[in-house]
Amino acid sequence: MTAGLFDLPRLRAREDAGLAERLARSLAETTAGWQLSTAQVTDWLAERALAHRFVVERIPFARLDQWDFVEDGARLAHHSGKFFTVEGLRVTADQGPVLSWDQPIIRQPEVGILGLLLKEFDGVPHLLMQAKMEPGNPNLLQLSPTVQATRSNYTKVHRGSEVRYLEYFVDPTRGRVLADVLQSEQGSWFHQKINRNMIVEVDEDVPIGDDFRWLTLGQIGELLRRDNVVNMDARTVLACAPIGSDEAGALHSDTELLSWFTAERARREMRVELMPLTEVNDWRRGPWSIDHDAGRYFSIVAVSVAAGNREVTRWTQPLLEPHGLAVTAFLTRRIGGVPHVLVHAKAEAGLRDTIELAPTVQYTPENYAHLSGADRPPFLDLVLTAGPESVRYRAIHSEEGGRFLNAEGRYLVVDVNEADAPLDPPPGFRWVTPGQLRFLARHPHYVNVQARSLLACLNTGAVGW
Amino acid sequence: MTAGLFDLPRLRAREDAGLAERLARSLAETTAGWQLSTAQVTDWLAERALAHRFVVERIPFARLDQWDFVEDGARLAHHSGKFFTVEGLRVTADQGPVLSWDQPIIRQPEVGILGLLLKEFDGVPHLLMQAKMEPGNPNLLQLSPTVQATRSNYTKVHRGSEVRYLEYFVDPTRGRVLADVLQSEQGSWFHQKINRNMIVEVDEDVPIGDDFRWLTLGQIGELLRRDNVVNMDARTVLACAPIGSDEAGALHSDTELLSWFTAERARREMRVELMPLTEVNDWRRGPWSIDHDAGRYFSIVAVSVAAGNREVTRWTQPLLEPHGLAVTAFLTRRIGGVPHVLVHAKAEAGLRDTIELAPTVQYTPENYAHLSGADRPPFLDLVLTAGPESVRYRAIHSEEGGRFLNAEGRYLVVDVNEADAPLDPPPGFRWVTPGQLRFLARHPHYVNVQARSLLACLNTGAVGW
Repeated sequence: MTAGLFDLPRLRAREDAGLAERLARSLAETTAGWQLSTAQVTDWLAERALAHRFVVERIPFARLDQWDFVEDGARLAHHSGKFFTVEGLRVTADQGPVLSWDQPIIRQPEVGILGLLLKEFDGVPHLLMQAKMEPGNPNLLQLSPTVQATRSNYTKVHRGSEVRYLEYFVDPTRGRVLADVLQSEQGSWFHQKINRNMIVEVDEDVPIGDDFRWLTLGQIGELLRRDNVVNMDARTVLACAPIGSDEAGALHSDTELLSWFTAERARREMRVELMPLTEVNDWRRGPWSIDHDAGRYFSIVAVSVAAGNREVTRWTQPLLEPHGLAVTAFLTRRIGGVPHVLVHAKAEAGLRDTIELAPTVQYTPENYAHLSGADRPPFLDLVLTAGPESVRYRAIHSEEGGRFLNAEGRYLVVDVNEADAPLDPPPGFRWVTPGQLRFLARHPHYVNVQARSLLACLNTGAVGW
Repeated sequence: MTAGLFDLPRLRAREDAGLAERLARSLAETTAGWQLSTAQVTDWLAERALAHRFVVERIPFARLDQWDFVEDGARLAHHSGKFFTVEGLRVTADQGPVLSWDQPIIRQPEVGILGLLLKEFDGVPHLLMQAKMEPGNPNLLQLSPTVQATRSNYTKVHRGSEVRYLEYFVDPTRGRVLADVLQSEQGSWFHQKINRNMIVEVDEDVPIGDDFRWLTLGQIGELLRRDNVVNMDARTVLACAPIGSDEAGALHSDTELLSWFTAERARREMRVELMPLTEVNDWRRGPWSIDHDAGRYFSIVAVSVAAGNREVTRWTQPLLEPHGLAVTAFLTRRIGGVPHVLVHAKAEAGLRDTIELAPTVQYTPENYAHLSGADRPPFLDLVLTAGPESVRYRAIHSEEGGRFLNAEGRYLVVDVNEADAPLDPPPGFRWVTPGQLRFLARHPHYVNVQARSLLACLNTGAVGW
């Protein structure tokens, strides 16, 4: 084997040096994109909402079509065996205020695709966003990624229309992949669910349907300051965008951060076992819902949906309906002039590796109202009582409207000082820079979906420093 | 929040810029270290072997002490509930020559520590290696990392002596962490086992026991050219060493590589279910062993061990004994002047994420002797027939001697050309640089233990380019 000069052109740089600068141009463009001004987006979304009939109605389980409690009630499943099932989970933890519990959980072993198409117009990268109806969203229609497809979607279990633009993500050699990573979703509600988060750049002309618009990163950042406009699937993909960092350093080096994370994972043990719904303690199934005995956490319910622009025009399905408004917040400080956020190495029963990095606060206060003192979640009360002068970002966002009903949460970024949250925080917490979160979000199993929602707000300029 | 100049010193660089250069000095030192010349290591190992009585004897299961087939034979377990169990596994794959099978498997949910202590002598980093006896090694004594401890070890289930130097890894603030990552082990023999791979640098004086010696990376590289000297635990930690790369580029960018890997993971489905040993089809349990009906793959056996320098002086335990000599090989080519190796995205039933990057060839030929044509493993015959002029590296190494009995394999790096292995290889294969493998080995679930063994040979200069 000798190296021939003739094959030198085959080599590529391992990193695309110009990419961060190009994305910075997209980030800087906050008021107008190639197609729409940011002000016009509201009208366009209202117009799309009018263009689509979409009625969501609660129904009893008995009226579910193609869905049944099978195996003597062990699982709620679709006749095709596809989509997802609702099953029981038994959890035994080694630490925390609650050491063991049962719960229903959504099991969806298929890997779906959440894909954003990117294209330059006048030298500025734009992302192709979709106005998409989802039955669980409180306002039904939100901005989603270009493609949001379960494997059942695109292998036609619905026998509905094809998923538009899917070909760019199934065969990414049609463009250039800028990000492609498997990421977890809600570890308290999903059993080991992962989705493929992709950003693909194209040069060719892309025909645009009525439900699609090209927007800049800066425009999306403006929209992320509003309640319930940018959906969870868009947020998680935006978190994986290869934004550059000009941070002068960090409180901890990357190796120290990885080592702390490894230690957190190694010291936690959580035993998790799927089991029949009928054996789940402390929950009961009624004709309309499966509920916790004390009314906490969430219910499993059923809805019927009639829509015009979905893969099929009418269907029924189960949804998970959380109780209460979640509070999801990063505490933030400048350290040596560089913004840092306080991450929490949080154990969640449905995560494949048990631990991922969560926001400082990720709780639904109602679920913890019965706890006091040391059992109160750390920093929760600090966020709940934060004055407006220290709230750097606040908006209400919904979780995935295809699985969750009215799953809204307050997302915040709150300024704190040494007295509130010291540089040497309690065990399980660590100060990291946004650049470090991006470094981790390039790989699976590090940054949980709630932290990725807030990272999307950092990546798009929705949170100013 | 305003940035005060007073707190600027708190910031650190995210990467340690001088580290790669320091490790390069250690790599360059191949003939002599601070304590021993490389030639003297053989004598020292022979002396340590003489110093320790160590007798390993096969016994029937009935003579196992503290180990029993419990729950009507469902699992082979230790009375303490610690260490590991042998259970049954049922696997259903969506592709490959065999679509479903049962097998026994070792289940060890605890996370252990494999730790290397590093210290500079005369400006050259040295690693503290241990001469360690393990019952499954064909030659019993090999070089292991400084610390090799299961959680059961260091929480004293053995009630034996303490693990030396463990304090540096349990509380790494005593030194500086250079690497710390959870890595999988053999996915065909272990169910979801992970260990913590750590390298910690210290400045303080470290008292050295008779079984320990400081060696340079270059010395370890020389020893890796010999058969059965450097054990698996040392190899996997060495694979995680933060060696620098001066590669001019790569055939695929890092993002392209990650995207290909993500696609490989997303397209594969493997259903894996633990079950009682008594329900495992095609395997039978005798008084001395559990064997496959056709005599393939491996057996579960039992041994008694008497030793002088282990945590306890006498014990019995089960071991997994593979049948046949494994062949583990990277094909390699220079592309644009830069060495590349051909990785295989290989599904293994015991891996948490199903797929990790394996060497080009990772098979025990005997297990595939009954297959022919397209069902023969790709590239296996190419490696088996490679002439000496194309074999860049060849040595026999053992897998973990605490769990596996005589688990030897031929590790090779073989030069090939476009006709043997094209730049556009078959599905599931990809050309990557050693630097890219190191980039991935910094994170869990990317590079499997066999590929890490070969990466250790690349990292230490055992394979010259």
